[in-house]
Amino acid sequence: MLGFEVDRNADVPLTAQVYEQMRSRILRRELAEGERMPSSRELAANIGVSRNVVLEAYERLAAEGYIEGRPQSGTFVAAGSSFARHAEAERERVAPAAARAETVADLAAIDFRAAHPAADYFPRAVWGRLAKEVCLDAPERVFGYGPAEGAPELRGVLARYLLQARGVRCHPDRIVITSGATQALHLVTELLSRKKDALVAVEDPVTDEMRAIFAYAGATVLPVPVDDKGIVPEELPAAEKPDFVFVIPSHQFPLGGTLPIQRRIRLLEYARRQDCYIVEDDYDSEFTYEGAAVPSMQGLDPERVVYVGTFSKILSPALRIGYAVLPERLVPEYRRLKWFADRHTSVLEQLILARFMEEGYFERHIRRMKKIYRKRREALVSSLRQQLPQANILGQAAGMHLVVEMAGTRFTPALLARIRSEGVQVYAVEHYAIRSGRHEHQIVMGYGGLTIESIREGVARLRRALENEPGTAPTRK
Amino acid sequence: MLGFEVDRNADVPLTAQVYEQMRSRILRRELAEGERMPSSRELAANIGVSRNVVLEAYERLAAEGYIEGRPQSGTFVAAGSSFARHAEAERERVAPAAARAETVADLAAIDFRAAHPAADYFPRAVWGRLAKEVCLDAPERVFGYGPAEGAPELRGVLARYLLQARGVRCHPDRIVITSGATQALHLVTELLSRKKDALVAVEDPVTDEMRAIFAYAGATVLPVPVDDKGIVPEELPAAEKPDFVFVIPSHQFPLGGTLPIQRRIRLLEYARRQDCYIVEDDYDSEFTYEGAAVPSMQGLDPERVVYVGTFSKILSPALRIGYAVLPERLVPEYRRLKWFADRHTSVLEQLILARFMEEGYFERHIRRMKKIYRKRREALVSSLRQQLPQANILGQAAGMHLVVEMAGTRFTPALLARIRSEGVQVYAVEHYAIRSGRHEHQIVMGYGGLTIESIREGVARLRRALENEPGTAPTRK
Repeated sequence: MLGFEVDRNADVPLTAQVYEQMRSRILRRELAEGERMPSSRELAANIGVSRNVVLEAYERLAAEGYIEGRPQSGTFVAAGSSFARHAEAERERVAPAAARAETVADLAAIDFRAAHPAADYFPRAVWGRLAKEVCLDAPERVFGYGPAEGAPELRGVLARYLLQARGVRCHPDRIVITSGATQALHLVTELLSRKKDALVAVEDPVTDEMRAIFAYAGATVLPVPVDDKGIVPEELPAAEKPDFVFVIPSHQFPLGGTLPIQRRIRLLEYARRQDCYIVEDDYDSEFTYEGAAVPSMQGLDPERVVYVGTFSKILSPALRIGYAVLPERLVPEYRRLKWFADRHTSVLEQLILARFMEEGYFERHIRRMKKIYRKRREALVSSLRQQLPQANILGQAAGMHLVVEMAGTRFTPALLARIRSEGVQVYAVEHYAIRSGRHEHQIVMGYGGLTIESIREGVARLRRALENEPGTAPTRK
Repeated sequence: MLGFEVDRNADVPLTAQVYEQMRSRILRRELAEGERMPSSRELAANIGVSRNVVLEAYERLAAEGYIEGRPQSGTFVAAGSSFARHAEAERERVAPAAARAETVADLAAIDFRAAHPAADYFPRAVWGRLAKEVCLDAPERVFGYGPAEGAPELRGVLARYLLQARGVRCHPDRIVITSGATQALHLVTELLSRKKDALVAVEDPVTDEMRAIFAYAGATVLPVPVDDKGIVPEELPAAEKPDFVFVIPSHQFPLGGTLPIQRRIRLLEYARRQDCYIVEDDYDSEFTYEGAAVPSMQGLDPERVVYVGTFSKILSPALRIGYAVLPERLVPEYRRLKWFADRHTSVLEQLILARFMEEGYFERHIRRMKKIYRKRREALVSSLRQQLPQANILGQAAGMHLVVEMAGTRFTPALLARIRSEGVQVYAVEHYAIRSGRHEHQIVMGYGGLTIESIREGVARLRRALENEPGTAPTRK
């Protein structure tokens, strides 16, 4: 046959080559429906392969319906085996997402992005060793499907840790392991605001991520103002009955306040009165630099509070392990939602983490990271005090970010762009606000993922950018 | 103070003990709002600790708002710091889910559950070694947040594999790595049937999981009958415009047919006519025992077909790694949905898998598993032919399950219960049917996770159970 050849040096077996070429010709209608196929003997001789090669390829084509043998007359292209391809079917490139291009362009800048932990301190050696051990000695059942709520090994050690470190009162059966806090919060929202006209009372400002999750669930968001101590309970909607109130009491994002006990109690009383839940996001509470960490709200009322945590900030977001601690009556339905979402989270990583915690590495790692973040925080605070003495620093008692407030400066998109052009990226609190106009003088600066040198250099660049900014009208040198 | 004591042998620091006891008393109103706190000197002397211990505990209580100092007069319990606990808040046990109890009761039975791979052949040593290597030598960025669509290392090697093994034509940017096929299908359904009055044309019978996913998305399901070759395109709804057609062309679940090329083409022509997508689930196509595997439908029209696959069946469901290969125009929105669902899938496991594939272990593992499953299949087929010669066997050409059809026998719930009481678990095809009454004589038997001895013994038990079953009226010996 014209143009039909096989490549004896290719990795692909000869039979597969013959099959593939014939199949293409049929699909492209170069061999038309009803047309007679060359006899196996003839084709084999033509292209120089053994007849068995052709026979096998023909068998496969026949099995898949491309060709059919007719008794006493030979082999023919079967009816209905070709069709027109669309031109678009040939295109296979996807343009890289715009978001990605932007990231690349910003790589040179010092990025004070919040909630990004220090990737350079991941305990590689210990984790690698434990991973190998788990692979070798885990029981066989581990390599099948696991329970939706997560490995009992991890839930057991996690329940003990949460009680001791965060005052979370829970039996391991109350815990559902999720793929990061993102999934935990996504599923909580699905569970609690599934009905039409769902209402969620939300700290304002709050992350875009949470707003997107609420919007996606079709819930109406009731913004509740936040001051330097956290959510203001007096501003909770008295007339409405929200399905839940979303709060970050340990270290609010972005403003950084720690909610005092009075407000916690008023919040719980509100929840009881309106018969709704509190969703407590506790994503970075392990890192407290001034005084001890305040125990969780969950411990005050485990049947009212859904507690959500993550290992992303302590260990690494690459692992994607988070969890929800649930009131008893929510457990079965939450497990069901987790099952539908992705069955369960990777069992091997859950077991590695359980061992990491059981053998004491986890608390050691927290202590180590706390020291590192404390130093980075100190570098940021002292650089700010030195370079921008007029700035007011908020929310620096915990976590991996703080807020800088400058009474005379409006952090408009134009100003932020100019700051970026000096090689430093900071984030306007206004960007996280649901109701705009209240936080124009504030920016968020995350320091978890930056070295002390970068922090100092970043603040110097920030000062340079702001020097050129008398009031709100930018002037260039 | 009465009953106030510290334990010097406890792991908990003395300060924390004092803090915790005071906090409990305030919350329980044993120390009422406005009440004066014992002076630090007095309490320290009373319980026999240094005054600094008490001062530190008081500082923490003050910082959290439980107590407040009043100049010249001492320290008092702050207003609003106690509240009534609900009795329910004390309960912390969750009853184990009913589903779990059932599983435990069935452990003694030989379970011909489908789609459960052989957990005993997971390549523990190689995987463990690669896990350790990746932990030690992966670039630092790997331990931060990753891209929603998955690690480029894995998408690159997967695109090459899918082209070579499955005829899937895709650039790596078309691939989104998901937490198993479950998540991939969940997100596809969310993406394609988000609008009101969504319609999905679905093979009937189909897994409960898929039906639950469609129901959850609020889509109306249009069942399309399946015969021993797969979906019957003539039965596709001509009047309606479904958002997509869900098919498993390689090895239909549960009936096991492989869709011939004519039907594939008619299906694609239907999709073009109705302007809808095909969602191709290709979950166990690697295991083909008769002839070569039929290439994917995606390769025939990459802009019409969403191709979904998984590593759960080849390697282990414990890993939770699956993927979707998408038409170009669906890529950005699908990535966004993945980001909202859980940001991304565990990066470490993606890198281990990428290395496992690059270094040739993956194809070796498939060859090995194929031999094992082939033997298990042969054991099941020959046992069935021997013990139940009247049975018709369907769908045994591929995968890890087959269908047994017995013209004279109706597999009613009562009969299935009696089969179970003989210590063997099989699954009625009728259970998977959307429109009932068409598959009463058929059962599914999965053999992937069973040893040859269990398979033989299981079939013997099945025969014993059926011997007591002349027609449909059960009689006992």
